[in-house]
Amino acid sequence: MPLPFTVSAVDRESRARRGTLTTPHGRIETPVFMTVGTRATVTGLTPDDLRAAGAQVLLGNTYHLMLRPGVELFRRVGGIHAFMGWDGPVLTDSGGYQIFSLPGDRTINERGARFRSYIDQSFHLLSPEKSIEVQTAIGSDLMMVLDVCLDSTSDEKSMRAAMERTHRWAVRSLAARQNDTQALFAIVQGGVVPDLRRESAAFLTAHAFDGFALGGLAVGDTRADREQITAMATDLLPADRPRYLMGVGTPPDLLQAMLAGVDMFDCILPTHLAWQSTAFTSTGRVKLTRAYHATQDVPLDAACACPTCARFSRAYLHHLAKCAEPLGPRLLSVHNLHHYHSLMSDARAAIEAGHFAPWAKTKLEAIDRHEHSDRRIGASESPT
Amino acid sequence: MPLPFTVSAVDRESRARRGTLTTPHGRIETPVFMTVGTRATVTGLTPDDLRAAGAQVLLGNTYHLMLRPGVELFRRVGGIHAFMGWDGPVLTDSGGYQIFSLPGDRTINERGARFRSYIDQSFHLLSPEKSIEVQTAIGSDLMMVLDVCLDSTSDEKSMRAAMERTHRWAVRSLAARQNDTQALFAIVQGGVVPDLRRESAAFLTAHAFDGFALGGLAVGDTRADREQITAMATDLLPADRPRYLMGVGTPPDLLQAMLAGVDMFDCILPTHLAWQSTAFTSTGRVKLTRAYHATQDVPLDAACACPTCARFSRAYLHHLAKCAEPLGPRLLSVHNLHHYHSLMSDARAAIEAGHFAPWAKTKLEAIDRHEHSDRRIGASESPT
Repeated sequence: MPLPFTVSAVDRESRARRGTLTTPHGRIETPVFMTVGTRATVTGLTPDDLRAAGAQVLLGNTYHLMLRPGVELFRRVGGIHAFMGWDGPVLTDSGGYQIFSLPGDRTINERGARFRSYIDQSFHLLSPEKSIEVQTAIGSDLMMVLDVCLDSTSDEKSMRAAMERTHRWAVRSLAARQNDTQALFAIVQGGVVPDLRRESAAFLTAHAFDGFALGGLAVGDTRADREQITAMATDLLPADRPRYLMGVGTPPDLLQAMLAGVDMFDCILPTHLAWQSTAFTSTGRVKLTRAYHATQDVPLDAACACPTCARFSRAYLHHLAKCAEPLGPRLLSVHNLHHYHSLMSDARAAIEAGHFAPWAKTKLEAIDRHEHSDRRIGASESPT
Repeated sequence: MPLPFTVSAVDRESRARRGTLTTPHGRIETPVFMTVGTRATVTGLTPDDLRAAGAQVLLGNTYHLMLRPGVELFRRVGGIHAFMGWDGPVLTDSGGYQIFSLPGDRTINERGARFRSYIDQSFHLLSPEKSIEVQTAIGSDLMMVLDVCLDSTSDEKSMRAAMERTHRWAVRSLAARQNDTQALFAIVQGGVVPDLRRESAAFLTAHAFDGFALGGLAVGDTRADREQITAMATDLLPADRPRYLMGVGTPPDLLQAMLAGVDMFDCILPTHLAWQSTAFTSTGRVKLTRAYHATQDVPLDAACACPTCARFSRAYLHHLAKCAEPLGPRLLSVHNLHHYHSLMSDARAAIEAGHFAPWAKTKLEAIDRHEHSDRRIGASESPT
């Protein structure tokens, strides 16, 4: 039984679409931004905080979770939902991205990736089958196939070899599935070479996957490359399956990709920047450590309805940032996630109303304007 | 107008008493444990978290707050309550403890303490008058006089000199008060020398302070010394004013001091230990990093009604601790504070019922038993 996915509206002037994914842990309204919770926790936040920020679905990292707490623990407690106290949908990646990008001892061949644990130096094999086994134990609602991740600046021959292995691994992953309640997504590779992307999509969409991701587009590529490949997505991927652009990105990245018909996103940016004392606001990015904010007894973003903006001032957030107090990144994480989830919620409403394209254009122009004015303010503020 | 304080019940077999302090930001039911929020934040927790944990009153540190965010900011935003979003009572210490205990350049004479800011190396004078000025700007409900803090192992001559200066500074603090809505507490000094303590109490209680603290008993003294001096409190201090034992302590310390008639406490222990992955539970202290907890799919404390125990398992808290994830100390801080506040709430009920002494004795025996059994468990567990 494939993952139930219905498209209820398509934008009038773009390929943006409004859909609903139905998982064992509830519905996901798309387009959706998925909150990254690498180690079965979103840094510093509880499930209640995540709900209050508007989160629908969390993303866990198989590579980290297989090392700690490990497969046995997930089997014992009955999966990640019970373990972390989150009763909504969860997506797990395959672990491939970390294997290919983190430093350390590793050997990769057709069988899979053999690597050393950063915790106890023990050796582990992450094969397509093993990844499915681990994700099955984790109990995620949406699983990803193990793929070969190359920097998108690699040469075309390496890209082709990686893509072909990705295809063989995808077929092995499908064969290794242990149930049909956990959906399985394939990952289209091929770097920034349009012909490879077409070939990869053609191969993978011929198999019974529940959804399709565009991989390898968050590192090493230019924005223009990414936009070109993403724009092809609508032609390459079936209309009745969800499309997921992995690891992307900034609000403008999300708007551009939604215009091209992408349904799902994830990115560490909102929480990552929160831990660097940076907030996304309706009038641009705000670096809370700047001396300018020390006396600003006003909300972080007057247009925001999040719990942080309802209760705390920029002056207080500046104080927490300067003191390196852990409440600071916590409050900024809630705000930044709320900012992202509100953008997606507004986008869904605009698609339903059929005017997403002009709405997105206005948003993109406003963000561009704020980025320029930020640079002016930044130059005139004392650097602290 | 002195701080309204009423004693509604006294225990049958001990000096424990049940009272109510009425402040501009609400009532404080005593005996009370005050939550330490050094820099206008309790590490990682929001005011809502603190309420959920049972907090009635927070403690801010004048030394830290005068350096950051500074007096001008408190004047601008209208005090600490608005600044940090906490609408309950706040007590501020005088800054003396930090001046005397933190390392760094400082000169102390009759006028006050001259010290260098650890933030920008600028010089500051903290005098009795300056401390009152800063605490007035902070807008705390309960202020403390600047006192001279010596290690209680100092010789008697130094102790006497420190005590006499503390008295002169107390009188200057009283004269420097700018309003009668912010209550002012004096601090009885005299180390572990009973005669000095008697002399100090006699001097200070002859003045119109709203309450009296026992200072200098959290560092350097033995438990026996502290208990002896604390036990004198009832004879030394007036029955109609609140008694505050500063910087103390563990749950047994609190029980012993309540038996002696102490009304108010503060200590960093519950949050400090939370950041070291240690929890107070009804069956003893629990070190969450121990391997033993990795597979314990049970609440941290089955007898606890806190938000952490309601939602999360020991296995998950172990996982967060091993990953050094910031959600770990946050969840443990909520639990540990709830543990302390519940102890105080139970103590208040026992005093009202007139059976505090036997109740406290049973509690003390149980804690002692758990500490012994903890050591046994500790020895048999693999150290991780």
